[in-house]
Amino acid sequence: MTEVRAVLFDVFGTVVDWRASLIADLQRFGEGRGIAADWPALVDAWRGAYRPSMDRVRKGEQAWTALDDLHRASLVELVARFGIAGLSEADIDRITDLWHRLRPWPDSVPGLTRLKRRFIVGSLSNGNVALQVDLAKSAGLPWDVIFASDHFRHFKPDAETYLGACALLRLPPARVMLAAAHNDDLRAARSFGLATGFIPRPDEYGPHQRRDTAAEEAWDVVATSIEDLAARLGA
Amino acid sequence: MTEVRAVLFDVFGTVVDWRASLIADLQRFGEGRGIAADWPALVDAWRGAYRPSMDRVRKGEQAWTALDDLHRASLVELVARFGIAGLSEADIDRITDLWHRLRPWPDSVPGLTRLKRRFIVGSLSNGNVALQVDLAKSAGLPWDVIFASDHFRHFKPDAETYLGACALLRLPPARVMLAAAHNDDLRAARSFGLATGFIPRPDEYGPHQRRDTAAEEAWDVVATSIEDLAARLGA
Repeated sequence: MTEVRAVLFDVFGTVVDWRASLIADLQRFGEGRGIAADWPALVDAWRGAYRPSMDRVRKGEQAWTALDDLHRASLVELVARFGIAGLSEADIDRITDLWHRLRPWPDSVPGLTRLKRRFIVGSLSNGNVALQVDLAKSAGLPWDVIFASDHFRHFKPDAETYLGACALLRLPPARVMLAAAHNDDLRAARSFGLATGFIPRPDEYGPHQRRDTAAEEAWDVVATSIEDLAARLGA
Repeated sequence: MTEVRAVLFDVFGTVVDWRASLIADLQRFGEGRGIAADWPALVDAWRGAYRPSMDRVRKGEQAWTALDDLHRASLVELVARFGIAGLSEADIDRITDLWHRLRPWPDSVPGLTRLKRRFIVGSLSNGNVALQVDLAKSAGLPWDVIFASDHFRHFKPDAETYLGACALLRLPPARVMLAAAHNDDLRAARSFGLATGFIPRPDEYGPHQRRDTAAEEAWDVVATSIEDLAARLGA
């Protein structure tokens, strides 16, 4: 592990709590506008559409589309399915942009700040650059560098994302660690030669989460938080 | 100007003082190793090779090559031309990497820090990502985002760099300002629709600098420093 020079983070779920943030923001929005809806169910369905929407692009069934636009298209469908009336185009834009202002888990900013003293800390996210820049500013994420799907025009778990980030850093994959709360993401990273760090987020998907509650493989580091990851890496 | 949302900076010369940094570092290196040379002349010749080396790539005479590799190839030629003996391959690497640790002008970090409160602040540099990440860490440049030539596989003044950054920010060019000490860079940016900010660096090329000592056109903002630019933009 002493040879690791850059620690790149998955963002949604690993660094920021998308579910609680979106539910709180939508409940506030609904109350302000007098729109009643099952906002937690909408948020879960919205996230449920995330992987399939990217997979359509990954399989070539749809031309390259930034995550902001995938989020918006999924939202339009779900608003209709949930029977939510009275939303303008500007409302849909505004709700889509809630992904730009998600809140970090409590250990994220202290942990990244500590890691940054010793390592290059960056994102390696399916979010597009504009989303990630806004998110880093609003959440105070002290990235040295942002790696985004629209840099590569590929989504994780495509090789182009993990290896593209290593190439831009001019580092061999073994000197780059992916840190994530998702075993699948780490499996892909390991298959391309990156070091791996697991941080459990057992509440990411709410009170009934069943997947990713623990490390499923012997990842290079299994930490309890980003601060703990920093400590284990000697930062 | 109130519509500008992102201020992107040229880096070499505008934000960091490449010439004084390289001369000081090479003099220290030479003294430590007992190698005498006209280091200021070497640095000036090295920078002199910068534009022609990129132009060979821009014109398609040479395949895409990151700036680090262009810097290294130019250095190898100049070391031979200057008759400097006794440098190993590792020495050449180490000297090339001095570009990763240039020092900022005194107003750069305070000015960027102030701008960052109100705007997205980023780089738009011919430096590659790895160079820029190291430089930002060592000089304390508080970028929200780095835009690098190897993101686009084009060097400025190619359209792909200016417009590529705007596209990744999902902003129309008029909402993005290029800030630079070089009139040519601003002319290109303006031709693609970006807003323009000039910051004079009359000592960039040393005591006998003749070009870029003042604004040559009515740029949207003509400032005296990056701090002054922040003030003029209301940050």
